[in-house]
Amino acid sequence: MRVFEETARSSECAARAGRLHTVHGEVPTPAFMPVGTQATVKSLTPEDLHGLGARILLGNTYHLYLRPGHERIRRLGGLHRFMGWDGPILTDSGGFQVYSLAALARIEEEGAVFRSHVDGSLHRLTPELAVEVQEALGSDVMMCLDTCIPYPAGEAEVARASGLTTRWAARCLAARRRPELRLFGIVQGGMDPVWRRRSAEELAALGFDGYALGGLSVGEPKALMLEMVETARPCLPADRPVYAMGVGTPEDLVECVARGVDLFDCVLPTRNARNGQLFTSFGRIVIKNARYKEDPGPVDPACTCYTCRHFSRAYLRHLFVARELLAYRLNTIHNLHYFLELMRRMREAIERDAFEAFRRDFYQRREGTP
Amino acid sequence: MRVFEETARSSECAARAGRLHTVHGEVPTPAFMPVGTQATVKSLTPEDLHGLGARILLGNTYHLYLRPGHERIRRLGGLHRFMGWDGPILTDSGGFQVYSLAALARIEEEGAVFRSHVDGSLHRLTPELAVEVQEALGSDVMMCLDTCIPYPAGEAEVARASGLTTRWAARCLAARRRPELRLFGIVQGGMDPVWRRRSAEELAALGFDGYALGGLSVGEPKALMLEMVETARPCLPADRPVYAMGVGTPEDLVECVARGVDLFDCVLPTRNARNGQLFTSFGRIVIKNARYKEDPGPVDPACTCYTCRHFSRAYLRHLFVARELLAYRLNTIHNLHYFLELMRRMREAIERDAFEAFRRDFYQRREGTP
Repeated sequence: MRVFEETARSSECAARAGRLHTVHGEVPTPAFMPVGTQATVKSLTPEDLHGLGARILLGNTYHLYLRPGHERIRRLGGLHRFMGWDGPILTDSGGFQVYSLAALARIEEEGAVFRSHVDGSLHRLTPELAVEVQEALGSDVMMCLDTCIPYPAGEAEVARASGLTTRWAARCLAARRRPELRLFGIVQGGMDPVWRRRSAEELAALGFDGYALGGLSVGEPKALMLEMVETARPCLPADRPVYAMGVGTPEDLVECVARGVDLFDCVLPTRNARNGQLFTSFGRIVIKNARYKEDPGPVDPACTCYTCRHFSRAYLRHLFVARELLAYRLNTIHNLHYFLELMRRMREAIERDAFEAFRRDFYQRREGTP
Repeated sequence: MRVFEETARSSECAARAGRLHTVHGEVPTPAFMPVGTQATVKSLTPEDLHGLGARILLGNTYHLYLRPGHERIRRLGGLHRFMGWDGPILTDSGGFQVYSLAALARIEEEGAVFRSHVDGSLHRLTPELAVEVQEALGSDVMMCLDTCIPYPAGEAEVARASGLTTRWAARCLAARRRPELRLFGIVQGGMDPVWRRRSAEELAALGFDGYALGGLSVGEPKALMLEMVETARPCLPADRPVYAMGVGTPEDLVECVARGVDLFDCVLPTRNARNGQLFTSFGRIVIKNARYKEDPGPVDPACTCYTCRHFSRAYLRHLFVARELLAYRLNTIHNLHYFLELMRRMREAIERDAFEAFRRDFYQRREGTP
């Protein structure tokens, strides 16, 4: 089974549409993956996610390894059965969470040594273990263990982390036991074009099912992030999917799609939903704002999600102010609908070879007002 | 439009089936009303509630008066439109919440003076205001303002509170402006049979659309609670629905239905769901118990709810231990399904005149093990 096929390409930019094939079905790209860190997209059921048009979810190796444990999930029939999701799942390798969440993280040649953020227990995550955990989960798409580079970082740090990421990627390839599960390499290289290119070329030479761009959206200026995408993208094989990890805002998605990226994940729609920040065709709104106290209209008049079809801004504000559990769910439904619909419209625009017109329209709407 | 019609009656006990008619449709009784305190049944959408077979919800005058305010809800088109629920809604009057939640509550002849639990502001809730608030909300069934009696209480306290409840009930009747909205009187009388009977008779003489039994499940022994139901029930007109407020456990529902009660509400299924306590045909289980860590079976093999059809005890335990928002929703769906299904089975048993057989079977199952 081929990993990926390109089905359409923009004549004006690098945007492309395609299909990612996995053992749990195919995913039309460009695609956004809702984040289901702990074997659940916070507040939503698999039924909700299907209803929203989600086709692939992201799970989290670091979290699931610590709790409830990958061996337990394997004995319970794998992650799909455990969480009741029958579509594809991509899992990240845990590298980023070790970097961002774990206490006392120490990177060694052998792997990452860290203390659990749950109970303080000591763990060593090696490239081999990262693959073992993801194979136990039964991830359709597994990620190699990588080492994250903070922004800003000196060249020595970039060189060291990028080199180690390549060596770990080779060890992940060697450790793989289930070839039907896709394995993606992760391009590092910090914000240094030379190292970005080198990292991409080294990974491409190893030969992965797909490639991720790691270490983006870590605080760098937007222009620099896009420059890194532009730098790395041409070094990666055209017949493989490219995934911008942790990216991003709606604008980031549009700009990265324009530069040939196929897959995305980000906590933004789900986390901001829980903080009461909602995405709309005309920008973001903060639902607890007093101006919405008696506003009978939907969050976004242009939106067709369950939340916008049934509830007013006034009701959503009430739920949020009263800290009602339903607030988190209705806001999450709205925000994920916004992101998934944005991707759907981009795919459609690419298929009609009208991506630049879509992009202009996208920015024009934001300048309008509700 | 008649308020209520009896459609079947047990030949063995006082259990009866019927239909409550409201401007938002009819409700087959005996019925359980999920509690939607702040214009939401915690964690569920109206769509979820329809799917669970809920036919009538309970809203909370005290909470909605304080936040977001009944005038605001009226301007937004009423409580039904505000919360997106098109079925009947019963609202309690706020008397119980003033008693249990508000700071510095003081009962005067004129009404209850209290400080808001939200912001400490001072309020006076009179019988007239309780009706005004509920009419602004557009409640299908409104409750008179009453005064709660703690357990235990001396006779003087019982006499004073019961007398005041009757006088307030008369004032509620006089204050009513929307006759299409049902108004129920609330029987008090503490745990004193003489005062219970007297309270029921006084309210029946005033003439309400239905009658509630208040001040039950406040810490008294179960036998005493049932004795109060048996005492008051015959004093109330047979062509009117009777509602046991805040009752109760599955056993309480069965016993009260056997004694002729038609309507119930209780936070038990929803609150216990959020605390990880799940109701099953064989009793309650505490989902965080370590024995469920790797249990691949559903919460209750006899249950057909969404949660039991899709998820294992192991998954529900994981969600609960990880404090995932989905835990609250899946548990709430399960518990409400249990309560609503219990009522459905009781209605069906009454219609077949097989209530006593149902009751025996109900207790026998509890003695079994999972």
